[in-house]
Amino acid sequence: MSSKPAIGFCGLGAMGFGMATHLVKQGYSVTGFDVYAPTLDKFKAAGGIPSTSLSESAKDKHFYVCMVATAQQAQAAIFGEDGIEKGLPKGATLLLCSTVPSAYATSVEKELKEIGRDDVYFIDAPVSGGAIRAADGTLSIMTGASPSAIEKGKWLLEELSAPSKLFIVEGGIGAGSNMKMVHQVLAAIQILAVSEAFGFAARLGLNGKDVREAVVGGRAWSWMFENRSVRTLKEDYFPGASAVTIILKDTGIITSMARLLNFPAPLCSIAEQVYLSSVDKGYGPNDDAGLVRLWSSEPVSNIQTEFSDEDKKAKLELVTNLLIGIHLCAAAESIAFAKHVGLPLPQLYELAVDAAGGSAMFKEFGAKMIPILEGERAENAEVLGSYLEGLKKAVEEAQNIKCPLYLGSGALNLMLQSGKNLDLATLLTLYTV
Amino acid sequence: MSSKPAIGFCGLGAMGFGMATHLVKQGYSVTGFDVYAPTLDKFKAAGGIPSTSLSESAKDKHFYVCMVATAQQAQAAIFGEDGIEKGLPKGATLLLCSTVPSAYATSVEKELKEIGRDDVYFIDAPVSGGAIRAADGTLSIMTGASPSAIEKGKWLLEELSAPSKLFIVEGGIGAGSNMKMVHQVLAAIQILAVSEAFGFAARLGLNGKDVREAVVGGRAWSWMFENRSVRTLKEDYFPGASAVTIILKDTGIITSMARLLNFPAPLCSIAEQVYLSSVDKGYGPNDDAGLVRLWSSEPVSNIQTEFSDEDKKAKLELVTNLLIGIHLCAAAESIAFAKHVGLPLPQLYELAVDAAGGSAMFKEFGAKMIPILEGERAENAEVLGSYLEGLKKAVEEAQNIKCPLYLGSGALNLMLQSGKNLDLATLLTLYTV
Repeated sequence: MSSKPAIGFCGLGAMGFGMATHLVKQGYSVTGFDVYAPTLDKFKAAGGIPSTSLSESAKDKHFYVCMVATAQQAQAAIFGEDGIEKGLPKGATLLLCSTVPSAYATSVEKELKEIGRDDVYFIDAPVSGGAIRAADGTLSIMTGASPSAIEKGKWLLEELSAPSKLFIVEGGIGAGSNMKMVHQVLAAIQILAVSEAFGFAARLGLNGKDVREAVVGGRAWSWMFENRSVRTLKEDYFPGASAVTIILKDTGIITSMARLLNFPAPLCSIAEQVYLSSVDKGYGPNDDAGLVRLWSSEPVSNIQTEFSDEDKKAKLELVTNLLIGIHLCAAAESIAFAKHVGLPLPQLYELAVDAAGGSAMFKEFGAKMIPILEGERAENAEVLGSYLEGLKKAVEEAQNIKCPLYLGSGALNLMLQSGKNLDLATLLTLYTV
Repeated sequence: MSSKPAIGFCGLGAMGFGMATHLVKQGYSVTGFDVYAPTLDKFKAAGGIPSTSLSESAKDKHFYVCMVATAQQAQAAIFGEDGIEKGLPKGATLLLCSTVPSAYATSVEKELKEIGRDDVYFIDAPVSGGAIRAADGTLSIMTGASPSAIEKGKWLLEELSAPSKLFIVEGGIGAGSNMKMVHQVLAAIQILAVSEAFGFAARLGLNGKDVREAVVGGRAWSWMFENRSVRTLKEDYFPGASAVTIILKDTGIITSMARLLNFPAPLCSIAEQVYLSSVDKGYGPNDDAGLVRLWSSEPVSNIQTEFSDEDKKAKLELVTNLLIGIHLCAAAESIAFAKHVGLPLPQLYELAVDAAGGSAMFKEFGAKMIPILEGERAENAEVLGSYLEGLKKAVEEAQNIKCPLYLGSGALNLMLQSGKNLDLATLLTLYTV
C-alpha cells in the first residue's frame, strides 16, 4: 500500500483503547467510537479521531475493528439503526475482536448475507493477553474467516499481535471464537483455583507468601496463579486488573456453548456458580484474585504460621496437590472440548501452553492427551493414581477443617468417575461418552 | 420374658430422648446418660433413671442403646475410660443407633474383639424418621449384625420401629449404616434442592406459595420438598427442626466413604460444598430450609408476582424441571452407590420410596434403574432426552438472570456426560466406570 489506510474502531475500553492507540502510534488514521464521552476525549488527546456515531465512524473505512464487551453490544454496534454496517463501504473488512460465542460470530456472517452485505470481509478474531500487550500491539489473536477475508485483513491482525501469536484457525468464521473459548476453559477453572488454593491454605494456617513460593515454578504452577497471586498477596482487588464479571462472562460463553453442543463442562460449571455467588456478595467489579475472600476474611499474607518445617511442608503439599489435580482435569476439559468442536488440537496446545491458560500440568499432560483424542495412542495412556491419591488427601483434610473446595471436590469426582485405575484415556472418556 | 429387662441408654438429644422415653412408657426401666445435666432432669421427670456415669449406666444392663451424634462421640462413649463397655455384663446386646460411617461400625466390632469383649452382641442400627416418630416408637431402622445378635436384639429394635419399618439388611455389621448412607444420598441432595428451587423461583419473580403448589403432588415432588417447604414459607429456621450441621454431617459420611471406596458422588459433593459455605455464613445451627437465604434475602412468600397466567406457568415449569432433573440424578447416585457397596437394591427401594429420601422421580425411575444395575435389562433403558432438555432450559434461564444453580448445573453436566442419547443405563454408567 502506498499510504496507510484509515481504520474505524469501536469499543475503547481497557483493551480497545490500547489497541486503537497502538494503531495511531503506528501511523494510522483511526476514527474511534465509544459510548463513554470522557474516553473519547482521552482518545483524541492520544491522536485518535473521536466519533459519536457508529455509522459515521465506519464511513469510508475499508477496515474496521469492533472491540465491544459482549455479543449483545456487538449486535447493536454492527446492525443497530446507526450501526457500523450502515457506514462501511463496499468490500470493507470488519474484524470482530470481542470474546463472543462462536454461534454469535456465525450469526453475524449469516445476517450480513441476509441483508445483502456479503461484500463485507468479516473476520472472527478474539484476542487475549491483557491491556499492556494490547497497547504494545503484541496480543495473541485467534482468528477464523474465509481465506479471502484473512488475506484482506492479515496486515491489520499482524499490527495488533505479536509475530508468533497470530493463530489462524482452520474452519472459517467461528473457529477463532471456539479457540478462544476452549482456551478460556483453562482460564475459567484456573482463576478460581488460585483463590481456592490460597483460601484452603489460609484455613490450614499457611501464609500466602509460603504458598506462592511452593507453587510458582513447580508442578502446581499455572500462569494464572503466578499472575493473580501478586494481587492476592497485596489485596490489590479494587479494582485490580481483571474483574470477576469478565471471567464470569467468558465462563458463561463456555457453558452456554457446551449446552448447545451437548458437551459436559463440569468444572467450568462449578466455577460459574461460584462466580455467580461472588457477584451476589458484591465482588463482581473487584479483581478475581479477591475471590480468596470467599474463604478468608484475613489477608492471606498476614497469617501467622506456627508449624514445624515438616508440618508446614506437609500442609503446603496438600495445597499443591489440590492445584495439580484441578489443573489436570482442566486440561482434559479444555482439550476434550476443542476436540468436540473440531479444532486442531496441536494449535490449541501451542497457543495455550504459553498463554494465560498455561500450567505445568497442561504442558505435561496436554501433550499426552492430544494423541489419545486423535486415536493414535490410547493403549499408551498414563496411569494417574498418584494424582488421585494426592487430591483425595487434600479434599479429606478440607472436609476435616470444614473448608469448601468447589473445584477440588469436582475434580476428585471426575477422577473417581474414571475408576480405580485412573488413566488419561479414561479421564478423557468422561467428556466424550 | 417374665419381666421386662432393664435398658441402658446414652445420648438423650432430640431423637434419643424420644426413643428412651418411649421405652419408659412401654414399661421398661431405662437408665439414661447424657453430658447435659438439664436433659437428665427432664429424663428423670419423664420416668427415666438418670446417670452421670457411662459405665454405671451400663452396669447389669443386658441391653444398651447408644444414640450419640457422631462416630467420634460413640467411640468415646463405648470405649472411653468410663465407657459403656466397662459396665456391660457378659453377653449384653449393644445397639449403635447413631448415623456413622459403616467403616466405623465395622471398627467397633473389631475393637470389641481385640479387647476380649466379643461376648457383646453388637448391632449396627441407624434410624430415620425424626423426633416425633422416635417418641412414638415408629422409626425406620436399618440394621445389620450377626444372626445371633439380631436374634437377641430384635425385640428392642421392634419396640423402637414401626412394624413395616424395621429393615434387617444382609451383610452383617456395617450393612445398616451403609443402607442409611445411601438413603442419605437422596436426603443430602434433595434438601439443598428445596432451597435451590425456591431461590431460583424467587429470582424469577415467583411467590413461594405458588411454587409449593406446583411441586407437591406432581413429578417434581420429593418428601423433603413437601416437608421443608412448610418451614420455608414460614421462615421457621431458628432453630426449626433440622439444622444444616446435621445434613452436613451425613453428607460428609457419604463423601468420605465414597473417597474410601473409590466411588464418585458428584451431586453430594456439590451439596457438601454449599453446606460448608452456608456454615461459613453462620447458617449452621439454623434449619436447612433456611438455605434459601443463599438466593433470596426477601422471604419467598412475600414476593409479588405480576406475570400473566401463561408466563407464570412457564416460569413454574422451569422450577419443576430443575427439581425433576436433580431428583433423577439423585436417584442414580443413591442406587449406584448401593450397588457399589453391595446392598440389596430392592430393599433400598422399598425403604426409601416411602421415607425422607422419596421423590416422584425415585419412585418411577428408581424402579427401572435396579434391573439395569442387576444386569437384567440394560437393553431396555429408557431414553431421557426430555429431562435433559427441561433441565437445560432451567439452567439457561438461571444463567440469564445470574442465579447460581449448584445442583441443577451439576445434574445437567451428568446428563451431558451421558451423551446425546441420554438413557438410564448410560447415566448409571457414570457411577460405575
